[in-house]
Amino acid sequence: MTGHDADETAAPDAPSRRRFLLGAVTGAAGGVLVGAGGVAALDGGSTGRATPTTSAGTPGVDPHGDHQAGVDRPAALQRHVELAVLDLPARLPSRDDVADLLDRVGERVTTLVVGTDPGLGGLTPTRLTVTVGVGPRVAAAFLGDDAPAAQPLPAFARDDLSPATEGGDVLLLVRCDVGPAAARAVLALRDETGLDVRWTATGFAGPPEGLAARNLLGFHDGLSIPRTDAELAATVWSRTPRGATTLVVRRMPIDVARFGAQPVDAQQRTIGRERATGAPLSGGTQADGPDLNAKTDDGQYLVPADAHVRRAHPLPAGLDGLMLRRSYSYADGPGAEGLLFMAFGADTDLFVRTQQRLDEQDALMAFTRATASASFLVLPGFTPGRGLGSVLRD
Amino acid sequence: MTGHDADETAAPDAPSRRRFLLGAVTGAAGGVLVGAGGVAALDGGSTGRATPTTSAGTPGVDPHGDHQAGVDRPAALQRHVELAVLDLPARLPSRDDVADLLDRVGERVTTLVVGTDPGLGGLTPTRLTVTVGVGPRVAAAFLGDDAPAAQPLPAFARDDLSPATEGGDVLLLVRCDVGPAAARAVLALRDETGLDVRWTATGFAGPPEGLAARNLLGFHDGLSIPRTDAELAATVWSRTPRGATTLVVRRMPIDVARFGAQPVDAQQRTIGRERATGAPLSGGTQADGPDLNAKTDDGQYLVPADAHVRRAHPLPAGLDGLMLRRSYSYADGPGAEGLLFMAFGADTDLFVRTQQRLDEQDALMAFTRATASASFLVLPGFTPGRGLGSVLRD
Repeated sequence: MTGHDADETAAPDAPSRRRFLLGAVTGAAGGVLVGAGGVAALDGGSTGRATPTTSAGTPGVDPHGDHQAGVDRPAALQRHVELAVLDLPARLPSRDDVADLLDRVGERVTTLVVGTDPGLGGLTPTRLTVTVGVGPRVAAAFLGDDAPAAQPLPAFARDDLSPATEGGDVLLLVRCDVGPAAARAVLALRDETGLDVRWTATGFAGPPEGLAARNLLGFHDGLSIPRTDAELAATVWSRTPRGATTLVVRRMPIDVARFGAQPVDAQQRTIGRERATGAPLSGGTQADGPDLNAKTDDGQYLVPADAHVRRAHPLPAGLDGLMLRRSYSYADGPGAEGLLFMAFGADTDLFVRTQQRLDEQDALMAFTRATASASFLVLPGFTPGRGLGSVLRD
Repeated sequence: MTGHDADETAAPDAPSRRRFLLGAVTGAAGGVLVGAGGVAALDGGSTGRATPTTSAGTPGVDPHGDHQAGVDRPAALQRHVELAVLDLPARLPSRDDVADLLDRVGERVTTLVVGTDPGLGGLTPTRLTVTVGVGPRVAAAFLGDDAPAAQPLPAFARDDLSPATEGGDVLLLVRCDVGPAAARAVLALRDETGLDVRWTATGFAGPPEGLAARNLLGFHDGLSIPRTDAELAATVWSRTPRGATTLVVRRMPIDVARFGAQPVDAQQRTIGRERATGAPLSGGTQADGPDLNAKTDDGQYLVPADAHVRRAHPLPAGLDGLMLRRSYSYADGPGAEGLLFMAFGADTDLFVRTQQRLDEQDALMAFTRATASASFLVLPGFTPGRGLGSVLRD
């Protein structure tokens, strides 16, 4: 981890920020910025939450490195998410214009994370991450039809989409422990692009309980995910472009009342894990994956045939590896409560094949559908010397 | 503070809950429940956030006492709010039927706060409060035309309401540090009433910075509020019915981008306080009220004539005392970002006269309007022996 004095209270041209932009911190993947006030040294891999006592010196997660922030780091989800999907003009701008736009966005991300951006309105961007992606149209045009996420998602059985909530050209994914700071950051970035907003979403997470927070159903969400560098390299980071990844986002209303009206035992058989502990019904702890072959003495599967963790498991599908799920809850009003499903992967194939398996058979799918859906190529990391849009020029 | 063993993991009829419901804890105004796990002893007046490490034993704020929870306690706002405004049938049910309904809601509030309610889905209701009120139609019918909030709010200059977002018969105000638990609690309570939903809102707050958190504008919100028992008795608690109060709720989109595009100095003159510290422009600290007479050497008011803190100040209006403001931020999409204004008062007159003064002249009003608005009689506190609806029968 590379320490750095980022003076959040300094004027935009103060030396500390210039130093930062000129590259005093480079490629500190997994590292974080440390505030001048010394209030909070945030570890991107820690589950601890920052507790700022002043408005100064509590910056976000270092945006620089091989990969953007907000994918694997920080390891523990921030409490608040703001997502905006933007449209480029119907006639796609030139490669250079799009790359320049993304460069500008990356620069803005840096000032937001350091905390010097006027768009924050003086709010403290505690554990702020910004993750930027481009939709299939942009990926295909500038990186080729074979690039990750260059092909739109296929239609799924439970899609309930409108043109206004499907796809999109530019993803802005902002996460932060301070809700108002996340909202201001996404406003500032939208303003920076000048693009039209296609759809947006906002969500929240409870505190982690062990390895993951609980979703609206009361179950831990995101327990079986890649965490080590080797696991991330195997299934999350794309090879071409190097350091990229993809994100699938789906807004999934859930019939929480109907799910919750079931006895806890039925809820657990729907999911395949214990609600209280997160442990698979086949035994072990929340850190363990399910043993899909484990049976009772009378030959019944401990993890039922239609349990969500079985149907979503890569093994029976002949698939390899895990998606990096980073989902949030949302509650936009009656009938609009559910999950903002978000999953990163080296390409979108693993998600597509998994969702198709869930559509065939999965006890959880009876409680949900998708009212918004999109996939993006998440751009590789950037550095002070190499802008966020560079990959489009390569 | 009255300690109590609330076994969150126990079955609904386990002894600990029965003891609670039968009155082992009574009238512990300001007190809180302590979890069996001993994980977090929550102080309603503390700014500390609970950090549960297990799903067990982290209950909400004691709902019993002279006043409902969620008005003055806890002193520091929870991080998440869910608000639902419900309609009774067009032909108002009988006094007894409405009182019975409110009794049932009160009982449900108790099990939610203790953490044993199945509607929570196993989520931890950290610092959960539920505050229940009735709209003008109900207050007038059962408590008389002179009861607090028995008269609807008048129209205001910047109202931009629809019938669907104005008024309503029953208020459910749920606040919690765990967003999914708040969402589940309001769902459970809506389900308990069986009433139609008129409108809902969801909001979030950053952590307190000194005496208050910052809103989307980056300014501290709710610094000048009644805090001591004497201050609360003077302006917040109604005399008849004893222990009641009123709540005004207004959803106010704010043009955050336009406000934020101003130099900080102009932002500060609009509000009348320093953004960084919360101190009035007349000097002092964030704990101080503005000195409205203070002038520069050349005779200019330090707090400008149209500054929000001057126009909203009770003194120039010949008014007495302060509203208990408990506002949240919200971000529902482009053009729908702003403030969920909430203010408690012994009656709604102080709010009405203050808003009329703001409509005459106030630098902040140029950036906002109201797209939802309602006022409620917040019922007096209840106890295990005297239900939430009792006041309607008295």
